[in-house]
Amino acid sequence: MNEYIQGEARIPEAEIKERIARAQAELKTAGLDGLLLTQDVDLLYFTGSMQNGYAFLPADDDPLYYVRRSVKRAEAEAAIAVRPLGAFRQFGETLTADFPAVMRDGGKRRIAADLDVLPASICQKLSEMLAAAGGEADSHGNSSLLDGSALIRRVRSVKSAWEVGRIEAAAKVAAEAFHNCLEHVREGVSELEWIARYEYEIRKRGHIGLMRMRAYNQAVMTGMVASGAAAAEPAAFDGPAGGRGLGPSAPQSVSRKRFARGEPILLDVGCCIDGYVIDQTRTAVIGELADDLTEAYGVTETILDMALGQMRPGALPSDIYAASLQCAEAAGLTDHFMGYGRDQAKFLGHGIGLEVDEWPVLARGFNEPLEAGMVIAIEPKFTFPGRGVVGIEDTVLVTASEPKRLTSLARGLIKLP
Amino acid sequence: MNEYIQGEARIPEAEIKERIARAQAELKTAGLDGLLLTQDVDLLYFTGSMQNGYAFLPADDDPLYYVRRSVKRAEAEAAIAVRPLGAFRQFGETLTADFPAVMRDGGKRRIAADLDVLPASICQKLSEMLAAAGGEADSHGNSSLLDGSALIRRVRSVKSAWEVGRIEAAAKVAAEAFHNCLEHVREGVSELEWIARYEYEIRKRGHIGLMRMRAYNQAVMTGMVASGAAAAEPAAFDGPAGGRGLGPSAPQSVSRKRFARGEPILLDVGCCIDGYVIDQTRTAVIGELADDLTEAYGVTETILDMALGQMRPGALPSDIYAASLQCAEAAGLTDHFMGYGRDQAKFLGHGIGLEVDEWPVLARGFNEPLEAGMVIAIEPKFTFPGRGVVGIEDTVLVTASEPKRLTSLARGLIKLP
Repeated sequence: MNEYIQGEARIPEAEIKERIARAQAELKTAGLDGLLLTQDVDLLYFTGSMQNGYAFLPADDDPLYYVRRSVKRAEAEAAIAVRPLGAFRQFGETLTADFPAVMRDGGKRRIAADLDVLPASICQKLSEMLAAAGGEADSHGNSSLLDGSALIRRVRSVKSAWEVGRIEAAAKVAAEAFHNCLEHVREGVSELEWIARYEYEIRKRGHIGLMRMRAYNQAVMTGMVASGAAAAEPAAFDGPAGGRGLGPSAPQSVSRKRFARGEPILLDVGCCIDGYVIDQTRTAVIGELADDLTEAYGVTETILDMALGQMRPGALPSDIYAASLQCAEAAGLTDHFMGYGRDQAKFLGHGIGLEVDEWPVLARGFNEPLEAGMVIAIEPKFTFPGRGVVGIEDTVLVTASEPKRLTSLARGLIKLP
Repeated sequence: MNEYIQGEARIPEAEIKERIARAQAELKTAGLDGLLLTQDVDLLYFTGSMQNGYAFLPADDDPLYYVRRSVKRAEAEAAIAVRPLGAFRQFGETLTADFPAVMRDGGKRRIAADLDVLPASICQKLSEMLAAAGGEADSHGNSSLLDGSALIRRVRSVKSAWEVGRIEAAAKVAAEAFHNCLEHVREGVSELEWIARYEYEIRKRGHIGLMRMRAYNQAVMTGMVASGAAAAEPAAFDGPAGGRGLGPSAPQSVSRKRFARGEPILLDVGCCIDGYVIDQTRTAVIGELADDLTEAYGVTETILDMALGQMRPGALPSDIYAASLQCAEAAGLTDHFMGYGRDQAKFLGHGIGLEVDEWPVLARGFNEPLEAGMVIAIEPKFTFPGRGVVGIEDTVLVTASEPKRLTSLARGLIKLP
């Protein structure tokens, strides 16, 4: 698997076929006739290409990738058959011609799409187009597309050995960049200056320029670096520490605050290589950290170890989250766990792969058992308003036995002179 | 206007009030009762803050900003009143209590939202929540939200003097970074290495880390740099030149190709300061460019001048686009204009502000007259498969008299030794 060269033109065909087979099994279980894929990352995952268009994946037949632009690029990259999309208004007729068994019975057919990311106005056009293609509107009226996002996220949550290799490649780049930038964690250097250097280091090594996130209105710009009080400021970002940011238009991650002696400096920075993301966090201090913050940092390592001890196939994500809450409570740090007060994030970790916010989430409500092949970033953190955030984050692979750490950074609070 | 300090905590209140007044006038004209804003950039524009939540803007009353997270940050930043969102399932009741005149008649009320960006699954939940709040479903069934995206894009298309000041600040940063990086345009430097340096230069000056785009599946990672044949490769990106990219997972912009002597090098790079984007392109060559490409470059300057000559209030964007097609035809370059063959982009320029792809677009179908205050990036380019792309792009403000160039780079083909 590891003979893959970074930036190679094609994702292995066997890889794509196996993903499609797993999705088709899920479609049959759910009683769905087909899955319409619209989002670029979903298209990449199931076709090997993220050109502009739609892929249709029937439960019982070979899929097709309808491409608006660039057909030529899609043909060079995709592991499934490519067709020019043609006029959008005829797409329904095209689907009916290509998939007569699925499309013939408009009143009964059940087609899902990635509705968690597809904009409502495009969804409506697609629904109308499908309804017009020899079908009938369903009982809800104009919306004939069902929500297939949970199905997609479940299939994508289990990574192949090839995918794990890509995440390890990203981890290697992130670790090199991190080590090269550590000397710049010194008094007077601003968070912004530091991340600019870090981003330069990952970018020239092949970071694609962003870490993709699936959730609406959530964007990460290469993670976050925040020091002292700036790290502890609440933010819209759905994570344990948002950061002060550069102003109302970029209200998270780095600010112009300069690193100072004795404050916790949270370095939560990953990268994205060949589409796959690594996420990891270390806490640094210039000089000495106050005893209570050092102790809280120690509790985050304890929670990480507790989670690693439970990360086996069959364990429930919600149980691991509940156990982390107990650890925080036992340490008397409940109010500080994963943010402070009403700005607390309600999770301990998140799946990661092509997007930063994949499944499973170590949180309440995630009651499907872990499986071997799942990759999860575990990020226990404690927030102290006015003082800072301490924590650690490792990205970890669930295996049949011990979980395998994909992050290649050493553990421990980083003390700088 | 220009006393604003980069990264300041608040957008001027008068600025927000004026935007809201213009949107309310449009709502009344369209017979709409209110506008529900959901996208982070739309929230920033109309409230001054982009925290997680929803803003409701009635046609006839003061707006409210319902915030999930962070309420504290929203209160510090927003120019309109902030309320905690509370439980989402009660949001309909909350709106009914806060806006009884709008909400009382469910069967007749007309509420729009930014459906071009709002994911379908969230739209459905909002629609159900509104329908349950003492209302009735409309004639289409479950979707009671109308599409307000055209209204929003129209309001946002006309910039205030304050906004133009932000775009000029971005132009200044982009020009400094561009000049600092020009010496690295030399044989053997890769596109990736070059953009890494450029991004470092803009980032440390306050670039927020990305240039936001509104369209689904369209992302820009600080523009694109592409040389020779790599620039001319077709891409999914809806622009005249996509670039080879780093692989199927980042199939546009920079590749690992190294700059070579005698080929056109397209440097299409902007930045985003305080949320506002500048976009600009220059063409460089190491040594000498072939005569026919030099001539084609000259035609792009001619087309830019032609467009500038027509950019007055009252002119139609579609006419300017048609005129550019005529210029390309007169030069015998129709097949090469804005991409090659079936991968051609169908526009000459695009509005720009908080997002790279704002209105108006200089394209067919845009038949509403230009107004003073519109800011448009005009980017004539010619693509020669196997050889490269030549072109220029300036961002320009429509004024009552001559258009004002906001890009601060000198014109002309850049010749390097």
